[in-house]
Amino acid sequence: MTTEPEVKEQVLSKKALKKQEKQALKEAKKAEAKSNQQQQQQSVHWSSVIVHSTEASPYGVIPFNCKIENRTFSKIKELNSNQKGEKIWLRGRITESRCKGSLGFVLLRQTFYRLQLVVDANNGSSKEMIKWLGCLPIESMIDVYGTIVVPETPVVSSTQDIEVLVERVYCVSSACSELPFQLKDANRVETEDEDSTIIKVLQDVRLDNRVLDLRTYLSQAIFRIQSEVCRLLREFLIEREFIEIHTPKLLPGASESGATVFKVDYFSNTACLAQSPQLHKQMSICGDLERVFEIGPVFRAENSNTHRHLCEFVGVDIEMNIENTYHELVDVFDAMFRHIFQGINTHCKNELLIVSEYNPFTPFVISEKTPRLTFEEGCNLLKEAGAEIPEDLSDFDISTEQERLLGSIVKEKYNSDFYMMLKYPLKVRPFYTMPDFDEPEKWSNSFDFFMRGEEILSGAQRVHDYDLLVKRCQECGVSEHSLRDYLNSFKLGAPPHGGCGIGLERVIMLFLNLGNIRKSSMFPRDPKRLSP
Amino acid sequence: MTTEPEVKEQVLSKKALKKQEKQALKEAKKAEAKSNQQQQQQSVHWSSVIVHSTEASPYGVIPFNCKIENRTFSKIKELNSNQKGEKIWLRGRITESRCKGSLGFVLLRQTFYRLQLVVDANNGSSKEMIKWLGCLPIESMIDVYGTIVVPETPVVSSTQDIEVLVERVYCVSSACSELPFQLKDANRVETEDEDSTIIKVLQDVRLDNRVLDLRTYLSQAIFRIQSEVCRLLREFLIEREFIEIHTPKLLPGASESGATVFKVDYFSNTACLAQSPQLHKQMSICGDLERVFEIGPVFRAENSNTHRHLCEFVGVDIEMNIENTYHELVDVFDAMFRHIFQGINTHCKNELLIVSEYNPFTPFVISEKTPRLTFEEGCNLLKEAGAEIPEDLSDFDISTEQERLLGSIVKEKYNSDFYMMLKYPLKVRPFYTMPDFDEPEKWSNSFDFFMRGEEILSGAQRVHDYDLLVKRCQECGVSEHSLRDYLNSFKLGAPPHGGCGIGLERVIMLFLNLGNIRKSSMFPRDPKRLSP
Repeated sequence: MTTEPEVKEQVLSKKALKKQEKQALKEAKKAEAKSNQQQQQQSVHWSSVIVHSTEASPYGVIPFNCKIENRTFSKIKELNSNQKGEKIWLRGRITESRCKGSLGFVLLRQTFYRLQLVVDANNGSSKEMIKWLGCLPIESMIDVYGTIVVPETPVVSSTQDIEVLVERVYCVSSACSELPFQLKDANRVETEDEDSTIIKVLQDVRLDNRVLDLRTYLSQAIFRIQSEVCRLLREFLIEREFIEIHTPKLLPGASESGATVFKVDYFSNTACLAQSPQLHKQMSICGDLERVFEIGPVFRAENSNTHRHLCEFVGVDIEMNIENTYHELVDVFDAMFRHIFQGINTHCKNELLIVSEYNPFTPFVISEKTPRLTFEEGCNLLKEAGAEIPEDLSDFDISTEQERLLGSIVKEKYNSDFYMMLKYPLKVRPFYTMPDFDEPEKWSNSFDFFMRGEEILSGAQRVHDYDLLVKRCQECGVSEHSLRDYLNSFKLGAPPHGGCGIGLERVIMLFLNLGNIRKSSMFPRDPKRLSP
Repeated sequence: MTTEPEVKEQVLSKKALKKQEKQALKEAKKAEAKSNQQQQQQSVHWSSVIVHSTEASPYGVIPFNCKIENRTFSKIKELNSNQKGEKIWLRGRITESRCKGSLGFVLLRQTFYRLQLVVDANNGSSKEMIKWLGCLPIESMIDVYGTIVVPETPVVSSTQDIEVLVERVYCVSSACSELPFQLKDANRVETEDEDSTIIKVLQDVRLDNRVLDLRTYLSQAIFRIQSEVCRLLREFLIEREFIEIHTPKLLPGASESGATVFKVDYFSNTACLAQSPQLHKQMSICGDLERVFEIGPVFRAENSNTHRHLCEFVGVDIEMNIENTYHELVDVFDAMFRHIFQGINTHCKNELLIVSEYNPFTPFVISEKTPRLTFEEGCNLLKEAGAEIPEDLSDFDISTEQERLLGSIVKEKYNSDFYMMLKYPLKVRPFYTMPDFDEPEKWSNSFDFFMRGEEILSGAQRVHDYDLLVKRCQECGVSEHSLRDYLNSFKLGAPPHGGCGIGLERVIMLFLNLGNIRKSSMFPRDPKRLSP
């Protein structure tokens, strides 16, 4: 669409005007914040009020290692209005604080649950205590003792319909007064709007201060969901007699491509960091462990700076015996993912609400039966949609953009954000992939799984015959030397088997549509980031 | 006790005689084995009998990627004599094989379950088939089809009271005819007897050929128990609202002592491999995850070649908020271990039977209440037993031998192989350990757990106050620079917290009294071993 020049100019000047206005507003806000801060700094030294026991004073700083025993703390999420009148202890962070004169309000936070504290000089506390409390920096950790009350109108910013009328309050651990960013800014829904007067906390600032960023409601929900995904995974696998194994991360040579391996000094030798548990999980299958899985770090020295690559990520690796055909693998992994998706929706209701509030997303949809396409069928769908696909598919792999396009075609056609593609060309898969029985030169017994058009699982039946494996090494130009131990395992007789590798962070990212894998990696590592 | 010289000589010559006899016997056995092997090699080329479908021939080699569908395989462990007369498919390894003329016996193995196959030319098979089967190398993987029969006298070497009368047998994957060692040798109980005619498979030979060694009954049991221990651990922790986290293994600096860190090339920078998740698990606590755990690899570049050290092992790391005192930590970890011990005994009955058969051991004993000693009390017990303990304990730590002695004292006194010691001197613990409240210069809120007199857990309350943490860094001579991100986390306010680190392989080794940590590490890494 073209726009007339004069119209464009008009738009621009309107925009410029708006920008100026917003700038002025922003500066005014800044000035106010600074003045508030100075006011705080001028106040009494809250940190000098030290108490060694909760009997000594109704408020003050508790030294870092005080021996105060026998307090039972309540959890905000478990409180309810039936407990009206009960006296309780609470520990949490100061999220917001408005204390003036004889009345103070503090929003106390535990993970993503919030509760309003009321400090009233005419009802259980003193003006000095309110002043002292008002001076504590935001994010400080406090212990409070008080009574559960039910306000006439519920507090908007709280997740509870009750308040606590405070009698005692102690600072357990104070935050510094100048935080790298304000949580209320970090908690705001990210928008594309460039001109906003709203303070944005950029991804790198968040990651540089990841500990603070972990306290955002979104992070709190993400990492709780991630933990649950691991639990669901294991639950499913262990029920089916899989064994959890731990393979070495220090290897004598590269496990996949030599180009993307990290080198380690190993007692005057050089070791490599495992790019996947591929070799050792197959070796444990040769060792008759029958069905194995591992959830652990994998390392890729890939200089990729994309939204979906990390140099260290959590790999879910599964390997199992096959009785008849490689479809057994696809069936197990399909059922596993459906167990996970259903499990998140059932067990993480609260967390999903939080995510949809702070990162609005279209819920992940699965159809009654997961669509299974062959690679050829997938290519045909793409061709019909106008994508450039070669006639000869034997050394073709679809691109990331084509994957995404196929994702939307499949969503349209089958109403599923989850699907799989089977029988990739042999040439685009690793040397250990089992060739197809009918056309061994062309196809392979391999498959990828996709969520919202992005690959999250790659798997295949493996070559379990020593001679064929050596031949495939040679055909693919892979050095047999560094694979000696692996190859020799197949001389001992190996059961037909196969498996898959899954990127845990990607599963979380795509289920919640987070847009960046760094959001589902607790302390992400990429070519430019090795800390915190 | 002294022995008279003449008696000694007599004993020696008797010994020498015995040795000679044994030597002769050994050589005879060797010759027999060689002849058997040659006989096998002279036989028909079993590998040339190839079948593409189970209908085509009742025996032969199935090519590596044949499309044979719809067979349902039985598990030996699930078979019983009530199924007499049923026709079944079985897949397993040839463990023993005696085939001659019109009769053959093959012991088929699946993990640690065995079943006798009978091939009878007068009952369902042919002499050719028996001959062919007899030529397959030991450890080859075969598919058999036959009828369940109940023999009059049960087979000694089998774990089943039934046999299978074979009609069809196919080789799925053949082992080479010269194995690095025989499984029957590797399965024998290790003895101290130096002169034995029995072939011993040494630890290094086993580890060099770990895949074959994994097939021993002992290894099969060990790694199944290890998997169950992880399951029990997580079950316990998740029930108590712990979250599973994944912290980075690539760090900008050493997480513990700089002396034992592996260095990694990281995009023209240098990274360190995490010696523990210590820093990041504490940071996730500062990020309000409240209760976390991780089971993952930890790396120690320690040049120790002992029975209990590895350069890469599986660390179980736990960290949690403390409400009142560090005793909460001890209570949780104590209950967790009791859950694990009871869980192994309940859920791994079969595996424990196997371990006690192939590695006879005194069962692990726990008393009704786990003995809790202070470090001072432990030292007093040692002193009473004659150990050299200094008057001033403030920078003393008990040695490995003293630990073992204390273990036996505690076993005697409390009848428990499991106990814990609390309040170690501050000076022998890491800088992040919380000092004792009453005597902060001398003691710390720390603890170790022991199994059979060896340390398996080390834990403590942590310093959660920024200023004290920096002070402790300086006192301990630890560089603040590489800990910058960690230290800064405490400026954001931190809850009182603590945790522990556990060596998974040690727990398994000591529960089963395996004597060497390499037996409970699937692919162990030590200063001299980086493969397989």
